[in-house]
Amino acid sequence: MFYLLDLFGTLAFAISGVLTAMNKKMDPFGVFVIAFVTAVGGGTLRDVLIGRTPVGWMLDLNYVYTIIASFVIAVLFRKKLEKLRKSLFLFDTIGLGVFTLIGLEKGLETNLHPTICIALGTMTACFGGVIRDILCNEIPVIFRKEVYATVCILGGTVFFVLLQLNVPESIVYLLTPAVMIFVRLLVVYYKLSLPSLEREQ
Amino acid sequence: MFYLLDLFGTLAFAISGVLTAMNKKMDPFGVFVIAFVTAVGGGTLRDVLIGRTPVGWMLDLNYVYTIIASFVIAVLFRKKLEKLRKSLFLFDTIGLGVFTLIGLEKGLETNLHPTICIALGTMTACFGGVIRDILCNEIPVIFRKEVYATVCILGGTVFFVLLQLNVPESIVYLLTPAVMIFVRLLVVYYKLSLPSLEREQ
Amino acid sequence: MFYLLDLFGTLAFAISGVLTAMNKKMDPFGVFVIAFVTAVGGGTLRDVLIGRTPVGWMLDLNYVYTIIASFVIAVLFRKKLEKLRKSLFLFDTIGLGVFTLIGLEKGLETNLHPTICIALGTMTACFGGVIRDILCNEIPVIFRKEVYATVCILGGTVFFVLLQLNVPESIVYLLTPAVMIFVRLLVVYYKLSLPSLEREQ
Repeated sequence: MFYLLDLFGTLAFAISGVLTAMNKKMDPFGVFVIAFVTAVGGGTLRDVLIGRTPVGWMLDLNYVYTIIASFVIAVLFRKKLEKLRKSLFLFDTIGLGVFTLIGLEKGLETNLHPTICIALGTMTACFGGVIRDILCNEIPVIFRKEVYATVCILGGTVFFVLLQLNVPESIVYLLTPAVMIFVRLLVVYYKLSLPSLEREQ
Repeated sequence: MFYLLDLFGTLAFAISGVLTAMNKKMDPFGVFVIAFVTAVGGGTLRDVLIGRTPVGWMLDLNYVYTIIASFVIAVLFRKKLEKLRKSLFLFDTIGLGVFTLIGLEKGLETNLHPTICIALGTMTACFGGVIRDILCNEIPVIFRKEVYATVCILGGTVFFVLLQLNVPESIVYLLTPAVMIFVRLLVVYYKLSLPSLEREQ
Repeated sequence: MFYLLDLFGTLAFAISGVLTAMNKKMDPFGVFVIAFVTAVGGGTLRDVLIGRTPVGWMLDLNYVYTIIASFVIAVLFRKKLEKLRKSLFLFDTIGLGVFTLIGLEKGLETNLHPTICIALGTMTACFGGVIRDILCNEIPVIFRKEVYATVCILGGTVFFVLLQLNVPESIVYLLTPAVMIFVRLLVVYYKLSLPSLEREQ
């Protein structure tokens, strides 16, 4: 179940990569690489920084197949995807929750401090998009307006608070992404965003 | 012989880095770093992702010396290099073949699936250029028009098909880059490129 | 003492990150990530390339706390920091010396060749800024005009020459950053910079 959600998240992230790359007039190889990096970039960075190598997607081909499928779907149905925006957004939010959870888990397995685990969760969920934006020569969108990362940090904090309160693990694993998904939907519904920090005024 | 070709490829990639960086009005340090990264960036990324550390060029100084030599040659003879474009292109194509082969080999040594090995071969040959373009603040050229990466993927496929057919290894190691070099020359000669995937039309 | 200087350098680098990011109209999360990456990016890259994982800042939370403190200070006092430029520049120069020294040391511990150690020292001191500039979508400033990296290479060379001359280690560890700080102040005072290498003239 969890694994399936992970592949769902991978699918959503890969599709968002395809759509971004096609706007940049890239050729099919470029579009595929961007899709790949958007989907597994965050987890890859996490694995490299904690020393889990070969990195995850090299050992489980289902990720590669999922991304290839996303690529084909997104290229064939690019016009229709515009209309499916809401479903895509839901997938993406599920991905956000699941990826954060996976990052938190790997941090715990490596015996790292909760603060670092939260950083790893956020990295897993957000840095695929950061690498995508860098490859597309743009300032990463999550540095400018999305509350994306804030939701991950919140999720990580909820996770450790619940564990501290001796809430059973299975419930923690359900509640954490539930809170994240709820908050993100709320934020998008009310169009909230963090204020930008400008210098000199 | 193989090792010599590897250093040839390093030389060609480093020179292409110097020429790109000089167009961006960088200072000598910047030019050197770009040359370095173009030459060893792909292999470094590969080594980091599969966990072969310290990465290759740290353990064999010949790569460093080759890049320093390329830097000096390219800076001194920058005007004449324009005229030598064809030879440079040939070096570069040899580098492409050899680097792909090295990536395939490291993937096999790490017991990874053929699909992942092909990805590693392509990464070794292409990602030095990708990092070069990111450092120069451009959308990577191989994502937009070159058939560069496609040739690497083709080479990797040929490699595994031949192995599957029980062709002796030494012949596989000769045929793979030969096919790649032949296809690339053909592609450039006939000015072929992949169509770009644009959204909305 | 050395450790304290390291945290001082981290503070200075993080503040420079905050100031750069605020000029780009990033939101608080973006500003924090840029501060983080500027401060620990060089050391993280070094650790990944030589295989020391989990990377340094994951195992010692003092770096994280220092960066959080820098972030808060820089955001609260952004107007006053302009006037403190000279002190900041001094911190930054101390950071440059200390970070280079740490890179040299890790290289020696990993039994790498002096040339590679000098590269690691330079990387530790300079690549945080490079990653900061890439995330801000600019060509890295040290590739264009600063003599920053040259000072690191000089420092690394001095370090190994002194070791070769059998100068006691404690003196080498004091003299190396002293020479670097002196040269950098001199360079900035006389407004020296390396000439840019342009093609075609």
